[in-house]
Amino acid sequence: MGGKNGREGNMPGIVPTRHLIRKMQFSAKSTGSVAPAMHRYEQLAAEWAEGIERGTLRPGERLPSVRQTCQARAVSPSTVFQAYAVLEERGWVEARPRSGYYVRARPSRPGPPPITPPPDTGPHPVAISELLVELLGSTRDAEVVPLGSAFPAPELFPFEALARCGARAMRRLKPAHITGALTAGDEGLREALRHRYAVQGVALHPEELIITHGAMEALNLCLQAVTQPGDVVVVESPAFYGALQALERLHLRALEVATHPQDGVDLTALETLLQRERVAACWFMTRFQNPLGALMPTERKQALVTLLARHGIPLIEDDVYGELYASAERPPPAKAFDGAGLVLHCSSFSKCLAPGYRVGWAAAGRFGATVARLKMMSSLSTSLPAQRAIADYLQQGGYDRHLRHLRHALAESQRRALAVIDESFPPGTHPTRPQGGYFLWLELPPQVNALALHQRALRHGISVAPGVLFSADARFTHHLRLNVGHPGDARLEPALRWLGAEVA
Amino acid sequence: MGGKNGREGNMPGIVPTRHLIRKMQFSAKSTGSVAPAMHRYEQLAAEWAEGIERGTLRPGERLPSVRQTCQARAVSPSTVFQAYAVLEERGWVEARPRSGYYVRARPSRPGPPPITPPPDTGPHPVAISELLVELLGSTRDAEVVPLGSAFPAPELFPFEALARCGARAMRRLKPAHITGALTAGDEGLREALRHRYAVQGVALHPEELIITHGAMEALNLCLQAVTQPGDVVVVESPAFYGALQALERLHLRALEVATHPQDGVDLTALETLLQRERVAACWFMTRFQNPLGALMPTERKQALVTLLARHGIPLIEDDVYGELYASAERPPPAKAFDGAGLVLHCSSFSKCLAPGYRVGWAAAGRFGATVARLKMMSSLSTSLPAQRAIADYLQQGGYDRHLRHLRHALAESQRRALAVIDESFPPGTHPTRPQGGYFLWLELPPQVNALALHQRALRHGISVAPGVLFSADARFTHHLRLNVGHPGDARLEPALRWLGAEVA
Repeated sequence: MGGKNGREGNMPGIVPTRHLIRKMQFSAKSTGSVAPAMHRYEQLAAEWAEGIERGTLRPGERLPSVRQTCQARAVSPSTVFQAYAVLEERGWVEARPRSGYYVRARPSRPGPPPITPPPDTGPHPVAISELLVELLGSTRDAEVVPLGSAFPAPELFPFEALARCGARAMRRLKPAHITGALTAGDEGLREALRHRYAVQGVALHPEELIITHGAMEALNLCLQAVTQPGDVVVVESPAFYGALQALERLHLRALEVATHPQDGVDLTALETLLQRERVAACWFMTRFQNPLGALMPTERKQALVTLLARHGIPLIEDDVYGELYASAERPPPAKAFDGAGLVLHCSSFSKCLAPGYRVGWAAAGRFGATVARLKMMSSLSTSLPAQRAIADYLQQGGYDRHLRHLRHALAESQRRALAVIDESFPPGTHPTRPQGGYFLWLELPPQVNALALHQRALRHGISVAPGVLFSADARFTHHLRLNVGHPGDARLEPALRWLGAEVA
Repeated sequence: MGGKNGREGNMPGIVPTRHLIRKMQFSAKSTGSVAPAMHRYEQLAAEWAEGIERGTLRPGERLPSVRQTCQARAVSPSTVFQAYAVLEERGWVEARPRSGYYVRARPSRPGPPPITPPPDTGPHPVAISELLVELLGSTRDAEVVPLGSAFPAPELFPFEALARCGARAMRRLKPAHITGALTAGDEGLREALRHRYAVQGVALHPEELIITHGAMEALNLCLQAVTQPGDVVVVESPAFYGALQALERLHLRALEVATHPQDGVDLTALETLLQRERVAACWFMTRFQNPLGALMPTERKQALVTLLARHGIPLIEDDVYGELYASAERPPPAKAFDGAGLVLHCSSFSKCLAPGYRVGWAAAGRFGATVARLKMMSSLSTSLPAQRAIADYLQQGGYDRHLRHLRHALAESQRRALAVIDESFPPGTHPTRPQGGYFLWLELPPQVNALALHQRALRHGISVAPGVLFSADARFTHHLRLNVGHPGDARLEPALRWLGAEVA
């Protein structure tokens, strides 16, 4: 898509472009108190969009040319180009080389990806949301349909095999090894992990790998290793709520950067931020970002690592969904391009093998010793039975077979969920169609209050994750994150239909 | 001992008393840069102490009277009383009612408890010690005699039984329970813990008990629940280094309070601090304090809880050694007197049942919901295999039998170690004789550099914990913490003899 590259090239940047879309939506629902006055290019785009919606501009029809529009509306060519770009990104028009912009066929489903409203212009402290506690609490209730959950269905995991492996591995361990367990983690597990990295073409330094109490501890320790309270950390927009909470706990300030539902972090916007702000670190998910599901294309990952290395800024790569790719080939993590040791790659087994075991890790690059020291000081070591169970399981060689089954089940589950959503939700609903993971991010029609929907749904025995959880300023008001990683749950389809009917 | 009660009564307070002793020691080794100028009463006490050491004042001899001294030295009676008190506390003289102060028989072993130098007068940020990393690292080397270790011998624990329990308990668990595991922890484990509290006469509120990743996570979460960065937290002097590190990580300031090797925190000194400083919380170990081994007498625990409740100050009670009492009766924790819900009682199984499993808990009083929320946000839940193994083990009913064996083994081990120390170390060595736990705290002659001794010992294959680890300002220069909880280790006795010879 030409517009995608254009956004990264000489255009005024993705931020104002997306900003416009949000304002259009805001003006549509008359929330004037939130929306600032519209720019000329925003008015123009909104006008054309309305023409397309009403059918006065029909599919295949050419938009008025730059010259025509400049004359008729007394605007500059750049205003017209900005208006074209907005509509192109929104999927309403397409550029034809040397010809102009044409109205696209009415977006038949699958529609365009959802719009992510622009982040704020400045960093700010994060406020903990009671809502999150309510949501996470509700998803533990087996009676509630777990569309708001953070985990795939437990039936997808080999718990029996893990329990057997754990018992065997613990019996084999000499007592001295138990109290002598290193802060860095069980050596068998570290060895197995290093091997998995090597297979992905990532050679780790022996000292940089530290086993942690889930990925959350890894991410927290890495954040502590590279920041001081008050520092600015760049996160995606929308961001994983856990990242926002971690920043809050460490008294850091979140700066959100525009993030594309398919391609991930906008590098142009990021570069602008890096020039404007003193940034201590970035925390990004390059593979199947939560909540968007975005997979950064390989060359963009490489460009990201290069950009950050040029600025000397560490990248905390939260990669807990990295194994859950739907494609035949495994896409590499940003860590694969880490020549400078600035990528702190964090992941866990919680989403792909052993939820509840709380075994994660950090491959912390040049910060390995610092992270190990922080780990020793704060939690000493990671729970040994869980580590040993997983190490033994990995040594048995069944992990890759399990992952193939899991990926297949999740991809199939996503396909079915999207089909139901496409059928049941009203026009103006835009779901992501990620290439991995098990989340969908839905942009609903702008008048929908997703928070109220979440509350109605919960009373109806359905949990969903409302979009307001995914930014520090409750920006995603008509967005939902849906967990579709429950292929065997017959309640999922009716729940999706119920939601669609509520939205309509 | 009359002097003990006197210290808590109308005396000028324990702080100046102990302060003097430190100055005496400092002046003896000419570290004038550290020692402030001596007070008159300090000079007087130092002079008498020297007389006792040289034999010019002999055992049974009466010290010059108040009247004599006032006349001869042109000092006030209170100066003389202060000098008496210092020497009495040090064990050099004893008061005989209506008669005066008499030189005691040369302290035959067991001698008086070691002196704890006084804390600083103000709170200050804590600096992480690389030394601690070195020490903790060294204790993981099986070739090194583990006198510096934080854990008892691994052979003392029922690892085989725990592994069997873990495998059985995991097999019994339905998958839905695995991902649904509550942040508060496995319900079977919480139930077993509540029962153990009830047996000790402590009725917990159902919501206040949260299972954590070891006691360290419990303590960290509790600290976060009751403080903001920059706050002042009172800790013991000497303090557990983990407490100092935790304060540092959370950007809190440590204020150390004088702590008696036998009786724990000095309540008079504490009350003075509370009146002078705005204190956010106290972090104390009331049972077998690390490193002193102090057990606060029950009535003092009660007085502590009452004092803090009057000031509305939360007490974080770090009680990881609480089960390791040598007496026939279990002494109660401070939590037993917690009417106001201000005691956050933290403990774990790491020192008494299952090292390496990283299962601890907080009974957080009125802060239960806050701690649970922080736990959910920071680590979600505690590793399930370890929780299930311990819950199953507790349900089998063998825990109390194991604890009886463990207590017996540790008490016997302490007895033997003290006998060797009494034989091998030079005069001027004062070990604690704790009523539980497995640490000894040794005050060595003041000219000994315990840090250098630690380094020489490590080269000799022996780890010890030098005293400088146990304060924020490296105050305990000629002190050691020794772990004597390794009854089966034949290397221990020769290692102690080697240390004694090095010190002499």
